[in-house]
Amino acid sequence: MKEIVNCAAYSIGHKTVDIDLDKIHEILKDPSQFVWIGLYEPSEEILERVQNEFGLHDLAVEDAHRAHQRPKIELYGDSLFIVLRTVHMVRDCHIQFGETHFFVGTNFIVVVRHGSSVAYTDVRTRCEAMPELLSKGQGFVLYAIMDFIVDMYFPVVEGLEDALEAIEDKVFKGNPSRETTEQIYQLKKDLLEVKRAVSPFIDICNRLMRFDIKYISPETQPYFRDIYDHALRINEIVDNTRELLNTALDANFSLISISQNDTSRKFAAWAAIFAVPTMVAGYYGMNFRVMPELQWTYGYPMVVIGTLCICGVLYYLFRRSGWL
Amino acid sequence: MKEIVNCAAYSIGHKTVDIDLDKIHEILKDPSQFVWIGLYEPSEEILERVQNEFGLHDLAVEDAHRAHQRPKIELYGDSLFIVLRTVHMVRDCHIQFGETHFFVGTNFIVVVRHGSSVAYTDVRTRCEAMPELLSKGQGFVLYAIMDFIVDMYFPVVEGLEDALEAIEDKVFKGNPSRETTEQIYQLKKDLLEVKRAVSPFIDICNRLMRFDIKYISPETQPYFRDIYDHALRINEIVDNTRELLNTALDANFSLISISQNDTSRKFAAWAAIFAVPTMVAGYYGMNFRVMPELQWTYGYPMVVIGTLCICGVLYYLFRRSGWL
Amino acid sequence: MKEIVNCAAYSIGHKTVDIDLDKIHEILKDPSQFVWIGLYEPSEEILERVQNEFGLHDLAVEDAHRAHQRPKIELYGDSLFIVLRTVHMVRDCHIQFGETHFFVGTNFIVVVRHGSSVAYTDVRTRCEAMPELLSKGQGFVLYAIMDFIVDMYFPVVEGLEDALEAIEDKVFKGNPSRETTEQIYQLKKDLLEVKRAVSPFIDICNRLMRFDIKYISPETQPYFRDIYDHALRINEIVDNTRELLNTALDANFSLISISQNDTSRKFAAWAAIFAVPTMVAGYYGMNFRVMPELQWTYGYPMVVIGTLCICGVLYYLFRRSGWL
Amino acid sequence: MKEIVNCAAYSIGHKTVDIDLDKIHEILKDPSQFVWIGLYEPSEEILERVQNEFGLHDLAVEDAHRAHQRPKIELYGDSLFIVLRTVHMVRDCHIQFGETHFFVGTNFIVVVRHGSSVAYTDVRTRCEAMPELLSKGQGFVLYAIMDFIVDMYFPVVEGLEDALEAIEDKVFKGNPSRETTEQIYQLKKDLLEVKRAVSPFIDICNRLMRFDIKYISPETQPYFRDIYDHALRINEIVDNTRELLNTALDANFSLISISQNDTSRKFAAWAAIFAVPTMVAGYYGMNFRVMPELQWTYGYPMVVIGTLCICGVLYYLFRRSGWL
Amino acid sequence: MKEIVNCAAYSIGHKTVDIDLDKIHEILKDPSQFVWIGLYEPSEEILERVQNEFGLHDLAVEDAHRAHQRPKIELYGDSLFIVLRTVHMVRDCHIQFGETHFFVGTNFIVVVRHGSSVAYTDVRTRCEAMPELLSKGQGFVLYAIMDFIVDMYFPVVEGLEDALEAIEDKVFKGNPSRETTEQIYQLKKDLLEVKRAVSPFIDICNRLMRFDIKYISPETQPYFRDIYDHALRINEIVDNTRELLNTALDANFSLISISQNDTSRKFAAWAAIFAVPTMVAGYYGMNFRVMPELQWTYGYPMVVIGTLCICGVLYYLFRRSGWL
Repeated sequence: MKEIVNCAAYSIGHKTVDIDLDKIHEILKDPSQFVWIGLYEPSEEILERVQNEFGLHDLAVEDAHRAHQRPKIELYGDSLFIVLRTVHMVRDCHIQFGETHFFVGTNFIVVVRHGSSVAYTDVRTRCEAMPELLSKGQGFVLYAIMDFIVDMYFPVVEGLEDALEAIEDKVFKGNPSRETTEQIYQLKKDLLEVKRAVSPFIDICNRLMRFDIKYISPETQPYFRDIYDHALRINEIVDNTRELLNTALDANFSLISISQNDTSRKFAAWAAIFAVPTMVAGYYGMNFRVMPELQWTYGYPMVVIGTLCICGVLYYLFRRSGWL
Repeated sequence: MKEIVNCAAYSIGHKTVDIDLDKIHEILKDPSQFVWIGLYEPSEEILERVQNEFGLHDLAVEDAHRAHQRPKIELYGDSLFIVLRTVHMVRDCHIQFGETHFFVGTNFIVVVRHGSSVAYTDVRTRCEAMPELLSKGQGFVLYAIMDFIVDMYFPVVEGLEDALEAIEDKVFKGNPSRETTEQIYQLKKDLLEVKRAVSPFIDICNRLMRFDIKYISPETQPYFRDIYDHALRINEIVDNTRELLNTALDANFSLISISQNDTSRKFAAWAAIFAVPTMVAGYYGMNFRVMPELQWTYGYPMVVIGTLCICGVLYYLFRRSGWL
Repeated sequence: MKEIVNCAAYSIGHKTVDIDLDKIHEILKDPSQFVWIGLYEPSEEILERVQNEFGLHDLAVEDAHRAHQRPKIELYGDSLFIVLRTVHMVRDCHIQFGETHFFVGTNFIVVVRHGSSVAYTDVRTRCEAMPELLSKGQGFVLYAIMDFIVDMYFPVVEGLEDALEAIEDKVFKGNPSRETTEQIYQLKKDLLEVKRAVSPFIDICNRLMRFDIKYISPETQPYFRDIYDHALRINEIVDNTRELLNTALDANFSLISISQNDTSRKFAAWAAIFAVPTMVAGYYGMNFRVMPELQWTYGYPMVVIGTLCICGVLYYLFRRSGWL
Repeated sequence: MKEIVNCAAYSIGHKTVDIDLDKIHEILKDPSQFVWIGLYEPSEEILERVQNEFGLHDLAVEDAHRAHQRPKIELYGDSLFIVLRTVHMVRDCHIQFGETHFFVGTNFIVVVRHGSSVAYTDVRTRCEAMPELLSKGQGFVLYAIMDFIVDMYFPVVEGLEDALEAIEDKVFKGNPSRETTEQIYQLKKDLLEVKRAVSPFIDICNRLMRFDIKYISPETQPYFRDIYDHALRINEIVDNTRELLNTALDANFSLISISQNDTSRKFAAWAAIFAVPTMVAGYYGMNFRVMPELQWTYGYPMVVIGTLCICGVLYYLFRRSGWL
Repeated sequence: MKEIVNCAAYSIGHKTVDIDLDKIHEILKDPSQFVWIGLYEPSEEILERVQNEFGLHDLAVEDAHRAHQRPKIELYGDSLFIVLRTVHMVRDCHIQFGETHFFVGTNFIVVVRHGSSVAYTDVRTRCEAMPELLSKGQGFVLYAIMDFIVDMYFPVVEGLEDALEAIEDKVFKGNPSRETTEQIYQLKKDLLEVKRAVSPFIDICNRLMRFDIKYISPETQPYFRDIYDHALRINEIVDNTRELLNTALDANFSLISISQNDTSRKFAAWAAIFAVPTMVAGYYGMNFRVMPELQWTYGYPMVVIGTLCICGVLYYLFRRSGWL
C-alpha cells in the first residue's frame, strides 16, 4: 500500500485537481480551495514534506509518526491536531485497533492512517457525491471520517454483547468450567480496551462543538453532536456489558459453589447407601460361638433382602430431599 | 395501527380543527394556533412531509425514523428535538421498551411513537378536558405526555422491587439454587436497562427548566420540575434495589457456603456413627485362636447392645453440637 | 388525632391568638404577625382551605396530600415548599419513617405531618418559651422543627451502630449462621433507607443558607448551618457503618470457609484414626491357612493394644498440628 | 488537670503578662496585643465567662462544650470557630481520639482541648522561642497548634502500615486463621476512623488559605499549605493501606480456599492408600470353599508384602503429583 | 557522588561559564543569563548557601532537605517549587523510587535529586546540543528534565504489564497456588505505588500550562502538554492493569473452587469404585451356615471377575461424565 493514498484540492464542494505534495503551497494561495491529503503509515521524509507545506508543529508531527498515542485533540496555533483510535473486527471476534491522525488548518486537512483499519476511500467517494455538504469545507471532511470511524465501533460492541450472551448461556446452562472463566477474563480485557479507545471521543466532540474556529462552521456543529451521541451510546453499551460481566463472574462463582455442594451431597448419599450392606456383612462375619441367625436356613437370603430394602428406602429418602 | 394517529390544530386551549398533513402550513400562518401531530412508526415518506411542513433538521428526522436512540434533548435552531424511552410491563413481569420522539417548535408539537408502548390518546383527551392548562401551548402538551411516560415507570420499578423481595425470600428461606442465582442476574439486567432509560430524564428536565424558549412559558417550569422529581425518585429506587441486589448476591453466596458446611458436618457425623459398629464387627471377625469373648454365650447380644449404645451417645453428642 | 393540631398567630415572639382556619386572611393583613399552622394527615378539603388562604401552588398542595415524596426544597414564587422524612425508632429496633411538609411564606408557616412521627407540640412549647428567638419569625420556627427532626435521627443511627456491633460479636465470636447473614442484609437495608432519608438534608440546608428570602433572616443562617452539620454527621456515621458492614460480610464469609476447613480436617483426622483398627481387624480376619500370629495365645490382646497405641500416636500428632 | 491551662497576653512576639480570665477585656482594648487562652475540658461556667469576654456565638460555645463534633471550620461574624480531631497512639497500637476547638478573633485565640491528647505546652514554649514568627499574631499560633496536631497523625498511620505488614506476613506465611480475619476487620475500622478524622483537614486548610481575614496574614498562608500537604499525605497513606487491606482480605480468602483444597487432596490420597490393604484383607476374609491362595504356605506374607508395595507406589505417585 | 553535580550559567542557549556556588549573585545581575544547578542529596549547609543566593522560602528548602514529599507544585512569591517522584527499574523487576525537587525562579533553576535515580547529565548534554531550544530559558530545562523523568516510567509500566501477563499464564494455565496469590498482591502494591507517583504529574502539568509566569514562555506550553499526555497514558495503563488484576484475582478464585470441585469428584468416583469390591468381599465373609455360592467350585473366580466388571463399568461411567 502506498504511503500517499490521495492528495487533491477541492473548491465549492468539487474536486478541482489531483496535486503533487510539493505543489501544495501554490494551491494554498487560493483561499476558496482546500487540500485533502490521505496518508498511510508515512515515512519520516514524507511527513517532513507535509510539515513544511503546512507549517505543522514539531510535537504533533512527531506524534503522527510514532503512532501509539492516546486519542486526543490539541490546538497548535490555529491548526487542530486530532488522534483517534479505529477499531476493526477480524474473523472469530478478534478486535484489531488502528490509529488515525488529523491535521486540520485554514485550508487543508491531512489524514494519517496507522495500523489495521479500513481505508477512507469510500468516505471520499461519498463526500464527493454530496457537493452541497462538502462545500462546507474541511470541517465536514473531518466529520465524515470521524463518523465513519465511530460507525466501525458498532459491529464491535455488538460482537462483545454477543460474547456476553454466549458466556451467560455457558454459565447458567452448562457446567462451570475453566474455559468460561477464561472467556470472562478475555471479554473484560476487550471491553477495557474498547472503552479506552472510544471514551475520549466524547471529550473530543465536546471540544469540537465548543471551539471557535472559523473553518468549523456553526452549521457543522450538529454533525459533531451526532458523533458525540454515538460515542455516548457505545460507551454506555460497553459500561453496561462490563457491569453485567462482573455480575456474571459472581454468578458463575455462586454456581461453582452450588455444584460443589451437589457433589458433596451426592457423595454423602451414596456413601450412606453403601455403608449399610458393608456394616451388615461385617456383623455376620463375626465369629461368636453363639449367633443364632447364622444357623437359620434362610438367614442368608433374609439378610440380603433386608439390606436391599434398607438401601432402597435410603435411596428414596435421599431422592426426595434432593441429595440424589 | 395507522401511522398518523392524530393531527389537529388548537387555539386558546380548544381543538379548532382536524387537519390534513398537507394543509398544515396554512394553519401555521396563524400565530395564535398550534398544531399537535401524533405519529406511530411513520414511514420515511410521511416523515419527509412533516419535515417539509415544519422545516425540521435532517439529523433529527433521521434519528426519528431509525429509532433506537439514546434519550436526549437537542436544540436545532429554535426547535427542540427530544427522545425518551417508554416502558411497559407486560404479563409475567416482562419489561418492554419503546421510544417516543418529540419535535417542538414555535407553533407545533410532533409526537413520534416507536415500539411497544401505550397510545397517547388518553393524554390528548385529558388535555382537551383542561382548556385553561392546554391554553399554555405546546409546552404543556410536552409536559403532559412526558408526565404520562414517567408515570408508566412506577409500576415497572414496583415490579422490580417485588422481584427483589421474592428473591430475598428464596435466598433466606429456601435452599440455595441455580434458579435464584439466575433470577438475581436477570433482575440486575432489568435494573440496568430501566436505569439507562430513566436516568437521562433528570438531565432532560433540568435543561427544559433552564432553556429560555418562548413557547415554554416560565409558569410551566414547575411542571417540568415535577417530572424531574419523579425521575429522581425512580432513579433512587432503581439504585437502591441494585445495591440491595448486590448484597443479596453476596448473602446468597455466604448461605451456599454455610449449606455446604452443614452437608459436610452431617456427613461427618453419620460417618462417625457408622464407623463404630463396622469397626467392632471387624474386630470380632478376627480369627485368633484365643479370643475369650467369642466363646461367651451372651457375647453376641452384648456386643450388639454395646455398639448400639455407643452409636446412641454419638448421635446425642452430634445433635447437641449442631452437626446433626 | 384531629387534623388541625394547632393554628395560632404570633407577634414579636408571643402567641397573640388561636384562630380559625377561615379567619386567617384577616390576620395576614397585619404584616407584624405570622401564622403557624400544624396539620396531621389533613383531608383534601382542609388542604384546599389552607391553599386558598395562603395562595399555595397546585403541585405543592398535591404533593402534601399524597405524601410519599422525596425530601426536597422548592421555591414557588416567593413561598417555600419543603419535604422532609422523619424517623422514629419503635421497640425492638424497628425503624418507622414519616414525612413532614412545610409551606413557608411571607407571614405564615404551615407544617403538615404524615405517617408515624412524634408530634411537634413540644417544639411549639419550647419556641414559645424563647420569645427573643421566636421573634425572628417563621424562619426560626422552620429551624426549630427541622432541628427536632434531625435530632430524632441520632438514636436511630446509634441503634444501627449497636446492631453492627452485635453482628461483629456474632461473626467473630459465634459460629457462622444463616441468622447472622440475614441480619447483615437487614441492617444494610435499614442503612440504605436512613441514608436516603437523611442525605437530602445536606442539600436542603445548603440551599436554605444561600436563599435570599426576606423572611429567613441572615442571623438564622448559622442555625441552618448547625442542622447541616448534624445531617453531615449522621450521613458520615451511616456511610461508615455501611462500609464496615461490607467488610463484616466479607469477614463472615472468610470465617465460614475457615470453619469449613476445620470441619474437613477434623473429619479427616478421625477417619484416619478409625481406619487403623478397621484395617488391622480386616487383616486378622483373613482365612490363610498359615498365619502364625493367630495361633499365639497373646495374639489378640497384643493386636488390640498395638492398634490402640497407633491410634493414640495419631491422635497426638493430629492434635499437635491443629487438625483436632 | 486544671481547666484553665494557660491564659496570657502577647505583644510583638513576646508574652507580656499572665492574666486572669476576668481581666481580659482590659487587655483587648490594646490592639497591639493578643490573648492566647488554653482550656482543658472546661466547665459550662468557665466557657460562659470566656464567651462573655470575647462575644462568641452561642452555637459555637455549645459545640465547644459538648465536644463530639465533626472537624469543621465556621465563620461567625469575623471570628473563626475550628474543630479538629486529635489522635494519640497508646501502648499496643491502640488509637485514642480527642478533640481540639479553636476560637480565633481579632485579638485572641482560645484553644479548648477535649479527651485524650497531648497538652500544647510544648507548642507554646516553642512559639515563645521564635518571637519573629509569633509576632505574626494569632494566625501563627493557630498554625503552630494545627501543625502539632497533624504531626501526631504520622506515628499513628505508620503504626497502621506496620499492622498491615504484620497481617501480610500472617496471610502469606502462616495459616489462615480466625485471628487474622478479625485483625483485618479491626485495622479496617481503625483506618476508617483515622480517615474520618484527618480528611476534613484538607478542606479546613483550603478554606484557611482562601479566607480573607485580616488576622491571618498572607505570609502565613504557605504555612497552612504545608499542613494541607501533610494532611493530603496522611490521607493518601490511609487510602493506600485501605486498598491494600481489601486486596489482603481477598488474598486471604483465596489462600483459605487453597488450604481447603490441600486438605481435601491430602485426605483423598491417604484414603486411597488405606483403601488398598482394607480391600485386600476383605478379599482373603471370604469364606469360599475353594480359594487356592489361602492354602499356600507363603500366601499370607506374599499378600502383606504385595499390599505394602502397592501402598508404596501410591504414596510415591501422590507425592509426585503434589497431593501429599 | 559529590553533592554539587553541576553549576553553570547559560546565555542565549549556550553555557557561558562553570561557576562557584558563592559567585552566583554576580551572575544573577545579568538578566540575559540563567543559572542551572544540579545537586545530589545536598547537605543542610549547601542548601542554605543555595537558599541565600536565590532567596528561597524556608518551607520549600526544608522539604527539599527532608525529601519524602508528595509530588506537588507550589508557588512561593514568583518562584516555583516542584517535587516529582522518579522511578527506576532494577534487575528482576524490582522498582526503586527517588525524588527530584526543582526550584525555578526569574533566572535560575535548581535541581535537587534524592534517592535512587539516573543522573541528569545526559539531559544537560542533550539540552546543550539544542541551543535554539535551550535559549527559551529555564522553562525549557524544566521541561527537558520532567520529560526525562516521565520517560523513565514507561519501561516500569511495561514491566508491570509483563508481570500481569505472567500472572495470567499462571492463573489460566497452571494450578492455583499460594505463589500466584502472593504475586497478585505484590503487583497490586507496585501498581498503587506507581499510580501514587505518576498521577500528580497530570495536575502539575496542568498548572504549569495555566501559570502565567514570565520565565515559562507560552511557546513552551505545548511541551508541558506533551508531558501531561504521557502522564495520562501511564496513568491509564496503570488503571487498566489494576482493573485486570482485580478480575484476575476473581478468576483465580473461581479456578481454585473449580479445582476443589474436581478433587471432590475424583475422590468420590474412586471411593465408589473401591466400595464395590469391599462390599462384595464383606458379603462372602459372612458366616451363615447356608450360603450356597461359597460351596461352588468357581464361586471365588466368578465373584472376583464380577466385581472387576462392575468396577470397570463404574470407571467408564465416571470417565464419561467427567468426574475422572
